[in-house]
Amino acid sequence: MAPLPIEFARIARHFRPLAGPGALDLLDDAAVFAPPPGRELVVAADAIVAGVHFLPDDPPGLVARKLLRTNLSDLAAMGAEPLSYLMTISVPKSTPEEWFTAFAAGLAADQAQFGLHLLGGDSTSTEGPAVLSLTILGTVAPGEAIRRNGARPGDLLFVTGTIGDAAFGLRAARGELKDPDGVLTDRYRLPRPRLGVARHGIVMAAIDVSDGLVQDVGHLCRASGCAAEIDAVAVPLSPRVRAAAHAIGPDALTLVLTGGDDYELAMAVPPERQSALRAAAGTVPATCIGRFLEGDPQVTVRGAGGAPLPLGAGGWSHFG
Amino acid sequence: MAPLPIEFARIARHFRPLAGPGALDLLDDAAVFAPPPGRELVVAADAIVAGVHFLPDDPPGLVARKLLRTNLSDLAAMGAEPLSYLMTISVPKSTPEEWFTAFAAGLAADQAQFGLHLLGGDSTSTEGPAVLSLTILGTVAPGEAIRRNGARPGDLLFVTGTIGDAAFGLRAARGELKDPDGVLTDRYRLPRPRLGVARHGIVMAAIDVSDGLVQDVGHLCRASGCAAEIDAVAVPLSPRVRAAAHAIGPDALTLVLTGGDDYELAMAVPPERQSALRAAAGTVPATCIGRFLEGDPQVTVRGAGGAPLPLGAGGWSHFG
Repeated sequence: MAPLPIEFARIARHFRPLAGPGALDLLDDAAVFAPPPGRELVVAADAIVAGVHFLPDDPPGLVARKLLRTNLSDLAAMGAEPLSYLMTISVPKSTPEEWFTAFAAGLAADQAQFGLHLLGGDSTSTEGPAVLSLTILGTVAPGEAIRRNGARPGDLLFVTGTIGDAAFGLRAARGELKDPDGVLTDRYRLPRPRLGVARHGIVMAAIDVSDGLVQDVGHLCRASGCAAEIDAVAVPLSPRVRAAAHAIGPDALTLVLTGGDDYELAMAVPPERQSALRAAAGTVPATCIGRFLEGDPQVTVRGAGGAPLPLGAGGWSHFG
Repeated sequence: MAPLPIEFARIARHFRPLAGPGALDLLDDAAVFAPPPGRELVVAADAIVAGVHFLPDDPPGLVARKLLRTNLSDLAAMGAEPLSYLMTISVPKSTPEEWFTAFAAGLAADQAQFGLHLLGGDSTSTEGPAVLSLTILGTVAPGEAIRRNGARPGDLLFVTGTIGDAAFGLRAARGELKDPDGVLTDRYRLPRPRLGVARHGIVMAAIDVSDGLVQDVGHLCRASGCAAEIDAVAVPLSPRVRAAAHAIGPDALTLVLTGGDDYELAMAVPPERQSALRAAAGTVPATCIGRFLEGDPQVTVRGAGGAPLPLGAGGWSHFG
């Protein structure tokens, strides 16, 4: 449906500058574009809700970038390249103009960084908390999309970057953890989508770590029909997480392994492709943290001595 | 991001049966599909909010179909054919399972009727009213998408179907207007997207009537850089609207012309293409209600005698 008059002006002022080829300046009922020849399309949609996925006081530019980046992370997990996106924004009527200005500026920055553009969308009001929905379009070479179901017993389990920063960052953003320079809070607010790391022929299965490392590796196991082991001591931690762990207490390990929102990639990689993976990852760290095994789809976390580690029962000391 | 566990089960139960080719059973981070060769893609996204775009007590199956059909109407206005859709659903935690069952059943019915399938999406909770966002994908022959900017002075203004039913239906749904057999309410709740009517080479510009006839013809005028006249007596009215007009009173004409939500098409058609339009419309009525003219982009409504009719100042008697 066409926007209401006030939304008309808002779209013209804030969103038309973000519109790219095919968006028809956001003046029509829909966007029109020729799909890139010889490519398959990869599409995903996610919504984030104020108070659930972001904090109502989070800077609007960072909210916009988180919305876009969580979707870019889905493309990264599929081995796809970004193309464009559509967005629907439902916000309270009282939302000030400055909120939109900062929100659009965040999108503009990330459009430039990741090479994609706005195709269309809608702006509505709601009596409740803001709900922001984004549909992302990407492309991949035919047959080269990476699925969740390709892990095989014997594959190694790799993750990019470091794990747990976002879960610690959420606590910091809530004022529950000291974060004087805001590094942890930033990791919660601003995911780094790992585009270009998961490549066909190297990575057999991938997922982005949004629910939590153990849960998301579990998704790979269920889709692939095999088990997985995670070596807790191998899980890469940032210096900030190591330093903050004692403040969290005995649940720190559980928080790292199940906290979510890291938007790193968890990947199944055959042993003989390890060096190819590291080459593809470039400057992004890629760390082997376990392996896939024959068995029922479940994830076992093992401590330093190799014994299964019950999550939720403490165990930070196992991290060394 | 991947759904939470409860949403996992919900997606499996209600939405996986709706998933079509490329959706990967909704088990991956994104959908993957080869765009139909030799076609351009047409994409649009709209959100509807409980209490704003639908009534919280509206039957969930009808809400689902309205969400899908308002987007199908955007494709109809562009002259495109439906292909697939993605959807994000943000609803209160207290939403009962039966709501999802009925919602999905509505989608299934319309998928069968209009020939499209679900590609992906997301389900989240919100503390506020339900926000439902849908991104639709369609296709069109290259260069044959119909824009809003193609109207030229001398083109005739046509509309499909009848106008005003949905605005009257909203009043009926609110209990402000008698509607014993529910026909008007149904027109508000269940748009009829006019797919296949607006065709390249016949229709020069088109829009779907969502904001209101006068406002939406105004959008055509602004995009095309010309004026338009609407002959009030020519605007097609259903027998129900004629019968209910006296109950609305002197504002009935204004309600018809500005009420919105009809999801009929308003189209610019050169005089020599009138019969081609009627042939393309088939069983859908297509009525000439005015013309496009040289001049500043504005819409004049003329009464039976040809005098400009001030909207909002009554005038139902002019309708005859």
